[in-house]
Amino acid sequence: MQPRSEETRDRILQAAERMIGQQGYEGAGVAEICAAAGVSKGAFYHHFDSKQVVFQTLLMEWLHTLDRGLVAVRQNAGDVPETLIRMSGMMRQVFQLFEGRLPIFLEFWTQASRDPEIRKTTIAHTRGYEAFFTAMIQDGIAEGSLRPVDASIAARVIVSLAIGVLLQGLLDPQGADWEQVTQQAMQFLINGLAQPRAGRDIE
Amino acid sequence: MQPRSEETRDRILQAAERMIGQQGYEGAGVAEICAAAGVSKGAFYHHFDSKQVVFQTLLMEWLHTLDRGLVAVRQNAGDVPETLIRMSGMMRQVFQLFEGRLPIFLEFWTQASRDPEIRKTTIAHTRGYEAFFTAMIQDGIAEGSLRPVDASIAARVIVSLAIGVLLQGLLDPQGADWEQVTQQAMQFLINGLAQPRAGRDIE
Repeated sequence: MQPRSEETRDRILQAAERMIGQQGYEGAGVAEICAAAGVSKGAFYHHFDSKQVVFQTLLMEWLHTLDRGLVAVRQNAGDVPETLIRMSGMMRQVFQLFEGRLPIFLEFWTQASRDPEIRKTTIAHTRGYEAFFTAMIQDGIAEGSLRPVDASIAARVIVSLAIGVLLQGLLDPQGADWEQVTQQAMQFLINGLAQPRAGRDIE
Repeated sequence: MQPRSEETRDRILQAAERMIGQQGYEGAGVAEICAAAGVSKGAFYHHFDSKQVVFQTLLMEWLHTLDRGLVAVRQNAGDVPETLIRMSGMMRQVFQLFEGRLPIFLEFWTQASRDPEIRKTTIAHTRGYEAFFTAMIQDGIAEGSLRPVDASIAARVIVSLAIGVLLQGLLDPQGADWEQVTQQAMQFLINGLAQPRAGRDIE
């Protein structure tokens, strides 16, 4: 893509995020998004087939940022318990990524509950994270750092916890130190999952 | 309240749930809710000051059902780890309570993110659950069944987990046996929280 064209695409995405966040997915039409971005409808449809595609692109771009972080931690950390603890430390970045974006974050879930196409993509994303953590936990069992638990269930526990903390932290930022809650949650889980061994701090 | 009047109130609540679930909170007006309930606007405003009040009443009635269950388990179970495990077994009822209600459940969060009044009530509810579990975990520490963890953080972990599992289970019911995920999650947590002692199964 040429720089100019890419700039237009970014402007559309930013305007879509702003308008959908303010007016909801149903409320924000393509015309409003174009007006807010200062682009023509022609330019819009040159880049995106529909509002639905813009919406899904927004989610995918956020998740790519998150995915890159997860993969980097996975590659650079030690055993699986240590990797999980370091991943829970990423919650600070995740909160920064979603700060002020609670309305549009919730719009993804709301539209997923209404639109079968968006539901399919959203489910594919959460299942993707579950597969990622399932593989990690299986590695932990194989390397002997975790007990032989049901890896796919443990992975769903981790994903559920991340979603629940994110939602609560965005709704009630003053309600707790949510980064600390995330790290402590992971520590409790690892205490419950890990093979007891000398030298692993159980607190 | 007289039986007749109570029946009208229930009809309004059921219609509001249906209309808000279908059309969203913004989309469903008082006129539509009255038409769906087969009541006059006069009858509506006799029972509720506004749509916002109906909406909050719906949430409160669901949460009362949940609260009664939690209190009953708390009164009848043994020590705190056993109580927590039995509470995680309530997830079946919670899923039944919210089945088919994902859109309106999400509307609570969406409106909480937009409307300061609804946000305040929603935060009060989640903080209420956190206080409930904080007290339980403090009891567990006092009775010697749990390690001296930070009870308020552990309580937030439990509430986050419940919200995350509920959201995932409603969005992707086929994605897992979510009741099993909940129970296993609680077991992992308790393994991480409990004082090791003979006779407590650590699996």
